[in-house]
Amino acid sequence: MYSTALTFQSAAAHRAWLETQSRLPKGFRTGTASLEFAPVEVPSKRARMNLSLVALERPSAAFAAAFTRNAFPGAPVLVGRRRLAEPRLGALVVNNKVSNVCAPGGEAAAERICAEAARLLGMAPTEVLPSSTGVIGWRLPVEAMLAALPAAAGALQGESALPLAEAIMTTDLYPKVRRAELPGGASLVGVAKGAGMIEPDLATMLVFLLTDADLPREELRAALAEANEASFNCISIDSDTSTSDTVALVSSAAGPKVDAAAFRAALRQVCRDLAEDVVRNGEGVHHVIRARLEGAPDARAARALGKSLVNSPLLQCAVAGNDPNLGRILCAIGKLAGREGMPLDPARVRIAVGGEVVFEGGAMRLDPEKEQRLVAHLKAAEMYASAPPPDGLTFQPPHRHPPHERCVEIAVALGMGDGACEVLGADRTHEYVTENADYRS
Amino acid sequence: MYSTALTFQSAAAHRAWLETQSRLPKGFRTGTASLEFAPVEVPSKRARMNLSLVALERPSAAFAAAFTRNAFPGAPVLVGRRRLAEPRLGALVVNNKVSNVCAPGGEAAAERICAEAARLLGMAPTEVLPSSTGVIGWRLPVEAMLAALPAAAGALQGESALPLAEAIMTTDLYPKVRRAELPGGASLVGVAKGAGMIEPDLATMLVFLLTDADLPREELRAALAEANEASFNCISIDSDTSTSDTVALVSSAAGPKVDAAAFRAALRQVCRDLAEDVVRNGEGVHHVIRARLEGAPDARAARALGKSLVNSPLLQCAVAGNDPNLGRILCAIGKLAGREGMPLDPARVRIAVGGEVVFEGGAMRLDPEKEQRLVAHLKAAEMYASAPPPDGLTFQPPHRHPPHERCVEIAVALGMGDGACEVLGADRTHEYVTENADYRS
Repeated sequence: MYSTALTFQSAAAHRAWLETQSRLPKGFRTGTASLEFAPVEVPSKRARMNLSLVALERPSAAFAAAFTRNAFPGAPVLVGRRRLAEPRLGALVVNNKVSNVCAPGGEAAAERICAEAARLLGMAPTEVLPSSTGVIGWRLPVEAMLAALPAAAGALQGESALPLAEAIMTTDLYPKVRRAELPGGASLVGVAKGAGMIEPDLATMLVFLLTDADLPREELRAALAEANEASFNCISIDSDTSTSDTVALVSSAAGPKVDAAAFRAALRQVCRDLAEDVVRNGEGVHHVIRARLEGAPDARAARALGKSLVNSPLLQCAVAGNDPNLGRILCAIGKLAGREGMPLDPARVRIAVGGEVVFEGGAMRLDPEKEQRLVAHLKAAEMYASAPPPDGLTFQPPHRHPPHERCVEIAVALGMGDGACEVLGADRTHEYVTENADYRS
Repeated sequence: MYSTALTFQSAAAHRAWLETQSRLPKGFRTGTASLEFAPVEVPSKRARMNLSLVALERPSAAFAAAFTRNAFPGAPVLVGRRRLAEPRLGALVVNNKVSNVCAPGGEAAAERICAEAARLLGMAPTEVLPSSTGVIGWRLPVEAMLAALPAAAGALQGESALPLAEAIMTTDLYPKVRRAELPGGASLVGVAKGAGMIEPDLATMLVFLLTDADLPREELRAALAEANEASFNCISIDSDTSTSDTVALVSSAAGPKVDAAAFRAALRQVCRDLAEDVVRNGEGVHHVIRARLEGAPDARAARALGKSLVNSPLLQCAVAGNDPNLGRILCAIGKLAGREGMPLDPARVRIAVGGEVVFEGGAMRLDPEKEQRLVAHLKAAEMYASAPPPDGLTFQPPHRHPPHERCVEIAVALGMGDGACEVLGADRTHEYVTENADYRS
């Protein structure tokens, strides 16, 4: 279960809470700098980039990473896959604004950045993992980035992950940080960015998980694979699996040894909380939808049906409008079950929304009073409503913090088997269209 | 190739052209009536329904139909599947506004309507095919429909299919009619409705194809299956495969015998033109996207990749904004290829937009001049741009006819095999969100 306990009355309250989450584990420092550039491809645009370093006091053998399965992976993903075979990792170098995907000379550009970061930090270039997010196809402004790296190195501090979480944002409205305390005084801190192009497939946009718990590389890698399956692989904002998705987990081993089961539980919780944060901060999201699928042929089918549901544009728009047009749930589940030839029998399906049974015995179960309760459930999960923008077209969210962690709760029992999955998705709004109709400007 | 010859300077010009398309083949009459009702489930709403009859002068053995593969099929789909085994078809009875999907007692309601239509027309109830489109889950207002049927029967006329094409619309902005002349003075006329919940899977929303060409049932059924594959199964507006999709083809056999190959060619062209009409009139559509996929492992993979492309919310929004953010094409193709394990090699992929090569040799090929030409291509394919609505939130299309038949042309050569497919999709706009955030009101 994702946690749903928090409400935030103001951006200041949210920020105060973020600060409590952000204390770095022992053995890590982070530093950021920013730079301006004009993309080669569209020189009339001016763009601002943040460059971040995460440096370990001592390079560590204990690291794990998972990357996108998109068939056009970014250059940092290609480099990162090679880094998995290296004996140690000593630093991450991360930029936003340009994802360095399918740009000419992309891998060489990423390696030049790594080499300069390594030189500044006194380590080997192969000990630096590059990571980039932003526009696909644009070239990295390498010279400007090399010039900014000393400032990032000069800003390294060992107190808080919050500057890092802020620096990696693109269209994110607010930074996402989650922590877990571990036995013996160790801790685990995760930061995430990502608000669009989000339907992770093995990993999500950019997630960095830092711990001082002393665990071997193999255990970290197994724990990360397991946590990813139960978190980032169960969310979608817009069904568009990014070309840059990366989740990296690094231990400084500067803290105590920690029981593997306790670590896995903590990692899973941090990953699930971050995954929900990513959806809640999705581009233009007014409502988070939590779909619980049970009784599918297997867990994989349950996830696919849940994704089909939360990715339905029609259901997304209905939720945005607080309109319980719940036939669209049938449409979204039935289109995939029909296409895939799943043996779905409508007579055995039961669907509840906000605890109200809306489909049972092969038919919708609706009445005027239930309609009112469903509207109330949708409204309670709404984070804000669209308001007419000053120019009439450019919709923007009215606040930059999550007011609460409530969801639109959809429970579907399919009556086919034992497969279950909980999937998180979001509604579709004017703010999403505005954000993505001219993202690069 | 879909036809792209037409431009319409005004709604009146479009209407004049529609009238030329609408002349009924010999042996058919159509009649419509309308009625008001309050849905049982939401009695505070008043809704208007159109009820239409298509009557053959003599019931015919020569008919074919294809239905949705959605696993929650509507009651008319369930009844229609049974009708396929009947010796003859004599009439269609069609309503909009309520789709009669998963409503309690839905099949019995459909059969009651058929029986009364049959009585008025002097035929057997099993000779009447029911068809419904509209909200899922609401019950048909059966009594009001029975009361309105005599008016529809009284309005039967043998001149034009245009009243039928208008009466079956829901969120469609304009009626969709396409015709083909056949050898010997026979003809084929098709009407379609559908603007949302459109990614047909074996058939599309509601399409009725009427011909007087004298061909046997088996030939009609084979021709329809072939035409569907090349038309309605290659389009998507919002990836939501309807629970009601129905394509019916009926011959009155009142005209001459027609060569099967000539008939198939005419049927394919009418179906492809109607399929493009459906996309062009899709909810909130500003641009039609035509994606030509070549070099896929097989035709099925080509279609799946093309659908992944046109269904990408991010690409849809970029096109809406005339923003050539073409990395999103890579994202959309790569996410499916990666997930399905297709052996896609970026180095062999070539992508062109509006005739401009934008990806080749594993990298994007962009420069400032090309960017300007791409923007011009997108703008030329735009049918209208959003304007701030009077209330600030309720976006509506500014006209109710298609000004032209131009498309955003995306050509992708994958370098894997011989599979090819042409897929039609659309952009994603404020008008779509507005339409679907409170569709039932």
